[in-house]
Amino acid sequence: MTSEYWKGVDQIKYIGHQDKKSGLGFQYYNPDEVIGGKKMRDWLRFAVAYWHSFDQRLVDPFGDGTAQRPYDHITDPMDLALAKVDAAFEFYNKLGVDYLCFHDRDLAPEGDTLRETNRNLDKVVDKIVSYQKQTGMKVLWNTSNMFTNPRFVEGAATSPDAEVFAYAAAQLKHSLEIGKRVGAENYVFWGGREGYESLWNTNMKLEQEHAAKFFHMAKDYANEIGFNAQMLLEPKPKEPSTHQYDFDAATTIAFMKEYGLDKDFKLNLEGNHANLAGHTYQHEIRVAREANLLGSLDANQGDKLIGWDIDEFPSNLYETTAAMYEVVENGGIGPHGGLNFDAKPRRSSFEANDLFYGHIVGMDSFAAGLRVAMKMKEDGFLENIVADRYKSYQTGIGAEIEQGTADFKSLEAHAIDKPQSELIAATSSDHLEEIKDTINHYIIETLSK
Amino acid sequence: MTSEYWKGVDQIKYIGHQDKKSGLGFQYYNPDEVIGGKKMRDWLRFAVAYWHSFDQRLVDPFGDGTAQRPYDHITDPMDLALAKVDAAFEFYNKLGVDYLCFHDRDLAPEGDTLRETNRNLDKVVDKIVSYQKQTGMKVLWNTSNMFTNPRFVEGAATSPDAEVFAYAAAQLKHSLEIGKRVGAENYVFWGGREGYESLWNTNMKLEQEHAAKFFHMAKDYANEIGFNAQMLLEPKPKEPSTHQYDFDAATTIAFMKEYGLDKDFKLNLEGNHANLAGHTYQHEIRVAREANLLGSLDANQGDKLIGWDIDEFPSNLYETTAAMYEVVENGGIGPHGGLNFDAKPRRSSFEANDLFYGHIVGMDSFAAGLRVAMKMKEDGFLENIVADRYKSYQTGIGAEIEQGTADFKSLEAHAIDKPQSELIAATSSDHLEEIKDTINHYIIETLSK
Amino acid sequence: MTSEYWKGVDQIKYIGHQDKKSGLGFQYYNPDEVIGGKKMRDWLRFAVAYWHSFDQRLVDPFGDGTAQRPYDHITDPMDLALAKVDAAFEFYNKLGVDYLCFHDRDLAPEGDTLRETNRNLDKVVDKIVSYQKQTGMKVLWNTSNMFTNPRFVEGAATSPDAEVFAYAAAQLKHSLEIGKRVGAENYVFWGGREGYESLWNTNMKLEQEHAAKFFHMAKDYANEIGFNAQMLLEPKPKEPSTHQYDFDAATTIAFMKEYGLDKDFKLNLEGNHANLAGHTYQHEIRVAREANLLGSLDANQGDKLIGWDIDEFPSNLYETTAAMYEVVENGGIGPHGGLNFDAKPRRSSFEANDLFYGHIVGMDSFAAGLRVAMKMKEDGFLENIVADRYKSYQTGIGAEIEQGTADFKSLEAHAIDKPQSELIAATSSDHLEEIKDTINHYIIETLSK
Amino acid sequence: MTSEYWKGVDQIKYIGHQDKKSGLGFQYYNPDEVIGGKKMRDWLRFAVAYWHSFDQRLVDPFGDGTAQRPYDHITDPMDLALAKVDAAFEFYNKLGVDYLCFHDRDLAPEGDTLRETNRNLDKVVDKIVSYQKQTGMKVLWNTSNMFTNPRFVEGAATSPDAEVFAYAAAQLKHSLEIGKRVGAENYVFWGGREGYESLWNTNMKLEQEHAAKFFHMAKDYANEIGFNAQMLLEPKPKEPSTHQYDFDAATTIAFMKEYGLDKDFKLNLEGNHANLAGHTYQHEIRVAREANLLGSLDANQGDKLIGWDIDEFPSNLYETTAAMYEVVENGGIGPHGGLNFDAKPRRSSFEANDLFYGHIVGMDSFAAGLRVAMKMKEDGFLENIVADRYKSYQTGIGAEIEQGTADFKSLEAHAIDKPQSELIAATSSDHLEEIKDTINHYIIETLSK
Repeated sequence: MTSEYWKGVDQIKYIGHQDKKSGLGFQYYNPDEVIGGKKMRDWLRFAVAYWHSFDQRLVDPFGDGTAQRPYDHITDPMDLALAKVDAAFEFYNKLGVDYLCFHDRDLAPEGDTLRETNRNLDKVVDKIVSYQKQTGMKVLWNTSNMFTNPRFVEGAATSPDAEVFAYAAAQLKHSLEIGKRVGAENYVFWGGREGYESLWNTNMKLEQEHAAKFFHMAKDYANEIGFNAQMLLEPKPKEPSTHQYDFDAATTIAFMKEYGLDKDFKLNLEGNHANLAGHTYQHEIRVAREANLLGSLDANQGDKLIGWDIDEFPSNLYETTAAMYEVVENGGIGPHGGLNFDAKPRRSSFEANDLFYGHIVGMDSFAAGLRVAMKMKEDGFLENIVADRYKSYQTGIGAEIEQGTADFKSLEAHAIDKPQSELIAATSSDHLEEIKDTINHYIIETLSK
Repeated sequence: MTSEYWKGVDQIKYIGHQDKKSGLGFQYYNPDEVIGGKKMRDWLRFAVAYWHSFDQRLVDPFGDGTAQRPYDHITDPMDLALAKVDAAFEFYNKLGVDYLCFHDRDLAPEGDTLRETNRNLDKVVDKIVSYQKQTGMKVLWNTSNMFTNPRFVEGAATSPDAEVFAYAAAQLKHSLEIGKRVGAENYVFWGGREGYESLWNTNMKLEQEHAAKFFHMAKDYANEIGFNAQMLLEPKPKEPSTHQYDFDAATTIAFMKEYGLDKDFKLNLEGNHANLAGHTYQHEIRVAREANLLGSLDANQGDKLIGWDIDEFPSNLYETTAAMYEVVENGGIGPHGGLNFDAKPRRSSFEANDLFYGHIVGMDSFAAGLRVAMKMKEDGFLENIVADRYKSYQTGIGAEIEQGTADFKSLEAHAIDKPQSELIAATSSDHLEEIKDTINHYIIETLSK
Repeated sequence: MTSEYWKGVDQIKYIGHQDKKSGLGFQYYNPDEVIGGKKMRDWLRFAVAYWHSFDQRLVDPFGDGTAQRPYDHITDPMDLALAKVDAAFEFYNKLGVDYLCFHDRDLAPEGDTLRETNRNLDKVVDKIVSYQKQTGMKVLWNTSNMFTNPRFVEGAATSPDAEVFAYAAAQLKHSLEIGKRVGAENYVFWGGREGYESLWNTNMKLEQEHAAKFFHMAKDYANEIGFNAQMLLEPKPKEPSTHQYDFDAATTIAFMKEYGLDKDFKLNLEGNHANLAGHTYQHEIRVAREANLLGSLDANQGDKLIGWDIDEFPSNLYETTAAMYEVVENGGIGPHGGLNFDAKPRRSSFEANDLFYGHIVGMDSFAAGLRVAMKMKEDGFLENIVADRYKSYQTGIGAEIEQGTADFKSLEAHAIDKPQSELIAATSSDHLEEIKDTINHYIIETLSK
Repeated sequence: MTSEYWKGVDQIKYIGHQDKKSGLGFQYYNPDEVIGGKKMRDWLRFAVAYWHSFDQRLVDPFGDGTAQRPYDHITDPMDLALAKVDAAFEFYNKLGVDYLCFHDRDLAPEGDTLRETNRNLDKVVDKIVSYQKQTGMKVLWNTSNMFTNPRFVEGAATSPDAEVFAYAAAQLKHSLEIGKRVGAENYVFWGGREGYESLWNTNMKLEQEHAAKFFHMAKDYANEIGFNAQMLLEPKPKEPSTHQYDFDAATTIAFMKEYGLDKDFKLNLEGNHANLAGHTYQHEIRVAREANLLGSLDANQGDKLIGWDIDEFPSNLYETTAAMYEVVENGGIGPHGGLNFDAKPRRSSFEANDLFYGHIVGMDSFAAGLRVAMKMKEDGFLENIVADRYKSYQTGIGAEIEQGTADFKSLEAHAIDKPQSELIAATSSDHLEEIKDTINHYIIETLSK
């Protein structure tokens, strides 16, 4: 075993709400506690994102990196890449998570050709696989970075340049092979450059056809090598692109159906991306689950007054409760899904232990959301409201509508002589203010125990 | 013939850019001038919106109506409704448009039952039909207002209350019958209340299924009565709802495909709605035309710094040029489509003649956009840029990708040993700054003639 | 005494968190409980807004009113106006608030001249004053509606038309007289039309000078009649205007200082308005309190994904905690300030009892915020963090900067030879993730008791 | 003289609108043409920004740099820094601008101490000064980068750490000395980090006091060394900070007045920053000019559908016309002001000649805006509208208001018996639609000549 990287941090333990005041330790995440028939760890399947936690220097468009990491003294790129693996597995262990996620380019430096790049990468993957064997750590998903390198300036699968498409395909091929080696449960595509800067010079339809071809080739190759991960597309409306084709859940589902991808692909949804598209996180999850296409979740939060992706660690209990309500209704995130912290500490939280604080507030916020959502579920609180609200479709004219026996003529006959007062009397108040009051009650009551 | 309503305004004539300085008269809209093989009036098919032009009092959430209209002295609701028809047809004639659009509720006051309401409505429709015979005026589309009345507070087709669904169906039935009587070329659905206020109490999937049922019933009934109008859905992301199901073009297309409506329905797209969804108008039109689902256009503009629908008359030549570029590429708005001014004067432009000024700036701005777009088309300006940009897909590895003969293995073989420098060298600059400079040139050069 | 309006609702009582599950009753607002040395009722000074609670029909730009109120059957405008007073005082009593707020136009219908309007108004005010004597109810503030009537279409004090300015002055004069009669503790100015629709035709400086003149005349007249209320300006960035001069707290303070109004005027701040300006509510309160110009608060919340004023009842405990933290730091809202619910139920919460639910969730959310903020204050949680963060200004070079004995030359001498590593070592992490985790802990821990 | 960097580009010439179709050459910028009594070059005083043009690699938060520059082969940092000076002066000469702008850190690499950093910097400044002597090139402004280096993570002048304040002061001292050496006409402060990430740990008032102290020290030292540049603050609402203290023009003016800085400081305003604050560029310029605090302008444009700073080269003729209208009304940008292109090519416009295209579209767009604004001014188009709109303040009751002889009692006497109809009749329509139509006419008519 290697020397310790994250000094001064022991295994993070569940302390419970009442005993924890601040510092390291979980208030709500008690991994082996059974809730709603499953262990918390199985409901939540938390994953640490390699890029934000081990590579991210905490740069922003106006500032150089501030991050202080315990391996910053290592200068040789491959030595550094290998040291990060040690640091990462020590971190996973101390934090108590079961999953990791990574891009290919997070792991190792690029060479001058893809062959060299792959060689670098394979060395690091060897080490990861070796750690997996020792520790049982699983890969929630891996992915390929096809947005950072200048060659992808105008897209990867949607590049106007066929050479770039070819390169992206080659890069992805190896990434799928790695996915197989590490036993990734999902494979994610986030198309940061798969969009346009300007419509004036863009053949949008052709670019989308290219993207679809690319996804089909990827699935074909995964099948060929026996890599059975669930394929996932991750929507985001813009940034870095002016417009990104996978704008939001609804748009991405439409794309998947248009091009016959909905059998093999599902969605990976992120809170901050939802907000940038003008949606709540709950909305995006709802859209996906109702389409039976909820794959996995990226756990972070945005600042709705800020127009760019901040990837903040989740701390807002309203948002985690809403997200977990959808998950509970779905019976779980999905057969393979988990909660990946696509989140980074603030640039001003640059010390090594802020990485722990960030994950703790994120894990506890989702664990708290799970507890509240499950309590509401057990009480039938919202189910009853919804059932009551739509009950008029179960009898009489409503049942005829539902069963398809009504048409415009029968409905006209039903309605044409009803006075206004009768129609108004038929509608019921939503009592949304009471619902919000009761949700506050659930949050406090459930979490104080 | 009735007495004159719009006093002091004569027939609005084409004067031409150089001779018109201000006031009434067209600089760019010369209806019978042939451009790109068609008369301008046939490219543009301008329609006046009854609601904004003749009913709208210029209220806002903090202010009562300011509009001064020449029939304001009439107090009996039915007398007023009939007088407005006279005023409207005088307006159409003076403005020189060929089309009108209306909601059912724009035309006549509601009675206590739908039967009474329909009776009021039919009287006004009789008068419209009579005017149509005299004048040749056509109806671009009609629609049904299913959002203003309190009965629709929680939706019409998506109401949780089956009585409301039934009433909406009955109301729509009559609206389709009217469409047939007036020979409407399209029939539009804008679902202002077909969305949610809160997800906590909403069965989104059920509501969308109800909407789909409703649209199918509508089409079935239209077929039954031989009303052959093109059916159109109009997207808007929110307002008045927190979330509207027909969020944007992509989402609405997905809904149409999911529920088998894409054969019979197309889209009616609006500039201000596009902006509220985070899109340009051009983007929404592009999405629709590439899906072969562009039906018709609502002509207005928003203020992108303002978060609600302002329905301003279009005046921005960049936006009208971009919209008309898409139309020209599409060979026209669509077989039945036109440009309906879903636009109103500012609340501070409350005089009667501001209605003429508003339509003139709107018509001239789209006519100007058509002229610029056609000139760019004739020169092949953007076509050449696009063709050149994607040319690598016509030979070599690109052609293999296009033809489906490439796969990840062949692409890896192609790419794996290419040095970075060669990949970078393959990418080309977009020269977007030069494109913008040239578009400015096209606008000035084309419009100064 | 009159007959009962709000049937089926008894006096709303404090039940406590643990015993209240849902329905009517307070979880956190226990008016006479002493916290931080003051009764809760004195920290919070809740007021009911006449316009939203008794006049608001729950219209929106696309829908007619849905509100069902117990006096809807009354048709004569003056009878209705007087009946609303009975209903209002019954509501105040049942809810257990100590304050009301109103615009002049909320109370009584307008006549054809201001003299007639004032006569109508005075009758209603007589009845209010009579109720005040019986009940001890106080007026937190009154104000004048100078935005709804079409005469104010281009502004009141900033109208380009001197007749409108004169009318507004006359209207306000009477409103100040009413303020004196009802003993209003504050007088509020919200300038919904005091802004511009377009800069092209606006003399912004002249309009702002007119506004300042108007405010000075108002204060002079209040002094003349011995009406000693604290004068308050209420910022909002836009809506209905494209731009409103009192954009946000900082802009409004600048205006007050520019025109010598900062001695006599303070700010009334609203959460939803803050969000529309791109700020948090906490930010606006902070700006005002640091300028010693915090006057009073409008309690509501917006939806940050929605670009218009929704005036939702507050329910978000993060926002109420942040607001009350600023209030606690300020030693109270201000000598005369309170929390006025400038809030309305959702349009779909149209029943009479939703008015109670709305106020209850609002009052409880602010009461909860007060409890959490006070607990953090008592523990010195944030005070210690802040004190520690800036401690370097208390000794050495920091103290020299603070005391004004440093200049660029002395600071250069201090810094010029420091190596980068030493500078970096001097900076400390914010630990913002840990702070958010601890705030979550404070919310749950404090509110569960 | 050095070898040529920008190969294939000759001196950019004025060609005129009619003769230029595309490519290099000015359509509207004819530097020595006299318009409104001044040469175009003197109205516009264009400056090239060193950072965007010569240092910017066209990175974004998800992508590495794509820029291809003719000095990319140089590897030694100081050799590169010196080569860039040659390239820059060749660029200025070919483009035909008279001014440059730079941050200290644009010019030369940092050393381990400020002393070493200054030494590097001075070598480059020597070379710039030498070029200035040969060419007559002037510095519109210089500034100091106090946001990129990690030491400024929590602010420079507003850092919670006194060591950072001291370092910033020392860094700025040298930057002022350089300003004097290069004869900078202005000195700009953009406080990218002078704001907060979270209010929970921020003493906002103390931070603002520190900023004010810093500005005073800066001005004192500039005076001491006889550096007479106009000091300028540049507002931006956020990014990188969550909130930046110099939020917008109004807020920054308030800050300047609060701390006695308004005699010595003015504003440098940017279009993209205006939009991020919810304002038009015209609004920000209007606010500054009416306060007599317009200093200089940063010429760029944003995309109002995008929530971050894109610093696009200006091409929108509506925005440049509006900006230049304010400048013309102001009699010029200001005694020392100019138009600095704080703008960069798109990341996909990465070739060297895109830098020329970008500046050309920017210069031509502002030159066009000047031509249109001047024509409107010469015709009195908007002046007449404004004069007419406010004319009621010149006689009768309006004049009494203006002269201060009216009070609430005299205004009540004037207004109290006016019937509503008379009040409504007194208001006039804005005719905003006609104004927009006429502005379109001015743009086409003026620019086609």
